[in-house]
Amino acid sequence: MENTIKQYESIRKKMLAYQFANYMISWDSNTEAPEECFPLRSEQVGVLSEESYKLQTTPETVKIVDELYLLREQLTDEVLKHEILEAKEGLEKLKKVPMDEYIDYMSLLAESENLWARAKRNNDFQLFQPTLERIVEFNRKYIKYVETDKLKGYDVLLDEYEKGMSSKEYDEFFDTIKTELVPFVKEVVSKKLEFDDAFNKLEYPKAEQKKFVDYIAEVLDFDLKRGFIKESEHPFTSGFGTTDVRITNHYYEDNFTSAIFSGIHELGHATYEQQINPELNKTLSGGGASMALHESQSRFYENIIGRSLEFWKVHFPKLKSIFKKQLRGVKLNDFYKLINRAEASLIRTDADELTYPIHIMIRYDIEKSLFNNEIEVSELPQVWNKKYKEYLGVDVPSDKEGVLQDVHWAGGSFGYFPTYALGSAYSAQIFKIMNKDFNVLKSLKSGNTKEINQWLQEHLHKYGSSKYPKELFKICTGRKFNPKYYISYLIKKYSKIYEIV
Amino acid sequence: MENTIKQYESIRKKMLAYQFANYMISWDSNTEAPEECFPLRSEQVGVLSEESYKLQTTPETVKIVDELYLLREQLTDEVLKHEILEAKEGLEKLKKVPMDEYIDYMSLLAESENLWARAKRNNDFQLFQPTLERIVEFNRKYIKYVETDKLKGYDVLLDEYEKGMSSKEYDEFFDTIKTELVPFVKEVVSKKLEFDDAFNKLEYPKAEQKKFVDYIAEVLDFDLKRGFIKESEHPFTSGFGTTDVRITNHYYEDNFTSAIFSGIHELGHATYEQQINPELNKTLSGGGASMALHESQSRFYENIIGRSLEFWKVHFPKLKSIFKKQLRGVKLNDFYKLINRAEASLIRTDADELTYPIHIMIRYDIEKSLFNNEIEVSELPQVWNKKYKEYLGVDVPSDKEGVLQDVHWAGGSFGYFPTYALGSAYSAQIFKIMNKDFNVLKSLKSGNTKEINQWLQEHLHKYGSSKYPKELFKICTGRKFNPKYYISYLIKKYSKIYEIV
Repeated sequence: MENTIKQYESIRKKMLAYQFANYMISWDSNTEAPEECFPLRSEQVGVLSEESYKLQTTPETVKIVDELYLLREQLTDEVLKHEILEAKEGLEKLKKVPMDEYIDYMSLLAESENLWARAKRNNDFQLFQPTLERIVEFNRKYIKYVETDKLKGYDVLLDEYEKGMSSKEYDEFFDTIKTELVPFVKEVVSKKLEFDDAFNKLEYPKAEQKKFVDYIAEVLDFDLKRGFIKESEHPFTSGFGTTDVRITNHYYEDNFTSAIFSGIHELGHATYEQQINPELNKTLSGGGASMALHESQSRFYENIIGRSLEFWKVHFPKLKSIFKKQLRGVKLNDFYKLINRAEASLIRTDADELTYPIHIMIRYDIEKSLFNNEIEVSELPQVWNKKYKEYLGVDVPSDKEGVLQDVHWAGGSFGYFPTYALGSAYSAQIFKIMNKDFNVLKSLKSGNTKEINQWLQEHLHKYGSSKYPKELFKICTGRKFNPKYYISYLIKKYSKIYEIV
Repeated sequence: MENTIKQYESIRKKMLAYQFANYMISWDSNTEAPEECFPLRSEQVGVLSEESYKLQTTPETVKIVDELYLLREQLTDEVLKHEILEAKEGLEKLKKVPMDEYIDYMSLLAESENLWARAKRNNDFQLFQPTLERIVEFNRKYIKYVETDKLKGYDVLLDEYEKGMSSKEYDEFFDTIKTELVPFVKEVVSKKLEFDDAFNKLEYPKAEQKKFVDYIAEVLDFDLKRGFIKESEHPFTSGFGTTDVRITNHYYEDNFTSAIFSGIHELGHATYEQQINPELNKTLSGGGASMALHESQSRFYENIIGRSLEFWKVHFPKLKSIFKKQLRGVKLNDFYKLINRAEASLIRTDADELTYPIHIMIRYDIEKSLFNNEIEVSELPQVWNKKYKEYLGVDVPSDKEGVLQDVHWAGGSFGYFPTYALGSAYSAQIFKIMNKDFNVLKSLKSGNTKEINQWLQEHLHKYGSSKYPKELFKICTGRKFNPKYYISYLIKKYSKIYEIV
C-alpha cells in the first residue's frame, strides 16, 4: 500500500503542475493577452489539456486508483481517502462515455461560445439554435451513459456542479421560493423606494473607485503578499493554493456601486481561498469545496455583510472622504436604500439581492424541463419570456436580453445555475448559525471582518475541498440545509427597507 | 521517413506547449506574481521542467531524432532539417553529462540567484564565493565532458550562447576594441561635454513618460493587437510566436531618458519577434536566431536609430509637447548631447553606447581566464577592480558596484556576456549594409521606421531561428562579421559629438 500511495502522490504532483499551468494561461487570457494570440494559444492549451487528460486516465493511474479504492478503509489519511473516492467516481464515469463522442463534444464547445457571443450581439437565437441543440443532445446522451440507479436524469448534471444535490432537494428549495418568496417579491417591486438618488447619476472617476476598493480589501483583511487586484471585463477570482489568490474588478464611472460590490463579492471568494489550510496546497484538495459553498462565501460578504447598514455606518465616511464632491450631503440612509433597491429586471447579473433567486429559479425550471424532455431547444425563447412575465412581471423585449443573456449553456454548463441561488441560501443559514457564537453585524464596528473571517476559517474554509460539500455544510452549520433561513432573512431585511408590515 | 517526420512533429507540438506554459509562468513571475507564491510555484515549475526534459530525452525522441539525422540529406523541409541538426547536437551533449551531476547543478542554480542577491545587498563577496566556486567547477567539468576536437575549453560555453562563435573570433573582436577603441574612449571620457543639463534634473511624471513611450511604440510600428507594454522592475521582452510579443518598461521620475531608451531597446527586440515568418510559429524555429542577433536588433533601434540626431529632429517636438514645463526652451542639440554623453562608469547596465563594449570586454577577459584555469574565483574581485582601473580608469569602491553587479554568473551563464558586445557590433555592420539600399537616417523623416522594419524583416527577421546565426548574418549583410564597422561607427559618431579631430 505504501508504495501505491507513493505512486499516487507522484501522479498528483503532476496533476497539480498541469492545473497550475492552466491557471496561469487562463488568468492571462482573461486579463491581458493580446487579441490576436488566441489561435496559436488555443493549440497549446489543447496539447496541455490532452497531456493532463492522459495522465488522469492512463491505465497506470486507473490501476493505482483502483488499488487504493479497494484499500480505502485502511487509508488513515482522510484527505487522500477523499481524493481516491472522487477519482474513482470520475474514472468510472469516464469509462462509460465513448471517447470519440466526448472529443467531438469538446470541439463543439471550443467554438460554441464564440457563436453564442455573435448570436447575442445580433439578437439572433436561430443562429445559435443548431449548436445549442447539439450541446443539449450530447448532455442528454451523456446522462444516459453515466446514470445509475441512484443518480438519474437531470440529477446527473446537478451532481457535477454540486456533489450530492439532487433535483428532489432543489425542487424543495425552489418550491419554497415559489410559494413563499415570489409573492413577497411581487409586493416589494410594486413599491417605489422613496429617496433622492441624484448622487448615483454623477461621475465617479475610476482612480478613486480603485482607492476605495483597496480600502475595502484592507477591511476584509485580504493579504496582498498572497494576492492582488487587477482589472478585467468581468470580475472574477482565480488562484493556485493559499499563496496566490487574485481577483479582478471592473470600474464603471457612471455606476460607482458596481465595483464596490463586485469587489466585496470577489474578495469573499478570495478570503475563502486564502484561509484554506495551507497543508492542502500540495494535494488535489485545496480550493473551495463546491460551487455553492464558494458562492455562499462571496454572497455572504457581498450581501449579508456588505449591504448591511452596520457595515456602512463604519465605512460610509471613508467613501464620502474619497468622493467629497459627489457624496456631499448624501445621507447614509439614502446610500443604504440605493444599494438595497429591489426591482424586477431582465438581466440576472444586474439583479439585486432579493430578486436574484427568481432569475435562477426560472433557469432551473427550464433546464429541468429540457432534460426531462418536456421542451426542446427551439421553444426556449418562448418559454423563457413566459416565465419572466409570470414570476417577475416583465416583458422580455429581445432574446439578447432574454434567453441569450448568459454564456453558461453555450459552455455546456447545465446544472450550474442552481448553485448560485443555493449559495445565497447557504449564506443566510451560515449567518444564522454564526450569530449564535457572536453578534455578527455588531462585530463590524471594529472596522474589519477579522472575527467573521476567523469563524469562517475555523468552521468552513480550512477544510478546502477535502470533504464532500454536504458533509462540510453540516460541519459548518451543525444541521442540514433548510431554505427557511434564506427566505426569512430576505423577508425580514426587505420588509424593513420597504416598510412592509 | 514520412512516418518518422509525423512522430517528430507530434513531439515538437508537445515541446511547444511546454515552452508556452513556461513562458506564461515566467512572464507572471517577472511582472505581477504575489511575493509569497514562489515556494509553491517553484515546485510546479520543477515538475513541468522535468516533464519537458523527459520529453526531449526519452528513448523514443532520441530514436526519432537519430533516424531523421541519418536521413538528413533527404529532408526537403529546410526548417525541419535545421531543427534535427540542432536536436541531434543537443542530445549528443546531454548523453555525455552524468545525470546526477546535472541535477545537482540545477538544484545549486535554483538557490544561487537568491544568495547572490543577498551577497550583493550586503556587499559580501565571500558569502557568494563558495557557491560561485561550485558553479564554476561544474562548468569546468561540463567543458571536459562535452568538448570535442573542434570545440574545446571556453569555446564550449561561448558556443552555447552564440552558436559558431569561438574565442578565436571573440579575441579578434575584443583585441580590435582594445587597440582601436580603448584609446579613443579614454580621450572622449577625459573631455567634458559642454551644455546645460538642468532639465535632466527635473521631475518627469510617470504617466507622461508612459504616454511618450506609447507614442514611440507607434513610431516603431509595434502591433498592439499582437502585444502590449507593461511595467516590471527590469525591462525585458518576452513572447510566444509572432502573435504574442510583450515588453516591459520601468519608469524613473528623476531620470526621464531611462524609460525612453529601454523602451526603444525592448521594442527593437519586439519588432524582431513580430516580424518573423508566422509559418514558423508552429515549429521550434520561431523566435530570434541567437543572443547576439537579438541584441543587434535592440541596439540598432536603441542606439543607431534612437540616439541619432535625425530621429530626434522628428520626435523631440512631441516630447516637448508632453513635457511642456520641463523642456521649455531646451534645445534639440542639448537633448542630443544628454543622450549621447559618454562617461567612464562602474555599472554595465547604466553605461552609454560608447563605453558599453569595454564593460563587456572586461567580463570576457575574466571568463576566459577562469576557464583557462589562469585565475580562481577567490581572485575575481581583485582582477575585476584592476581591469576597471586599467581600461576605464575608475576605482571600484565596493564589490556590489563591481564583481557582484550582474546576475549572470549566479545563473551559471558563462559565455553570455560577449554576445551583448557582438550584438552592438553586428548592428553597426547591418547599418552600413542597409545604407547601401537606402539612406537609413534620412528615412526617419517619414515619422516612422517602416522602411527600416521592412528591410530588416526581409533580410533577417523573417527567418526566425531556422538557420544558424552566422549563416543568417551572412544572408543579411552579404559578408562575414568584421568589427571595423562598429569601431568606425563609434569613432565617427563620438568624434563629432566631442569635436575630436
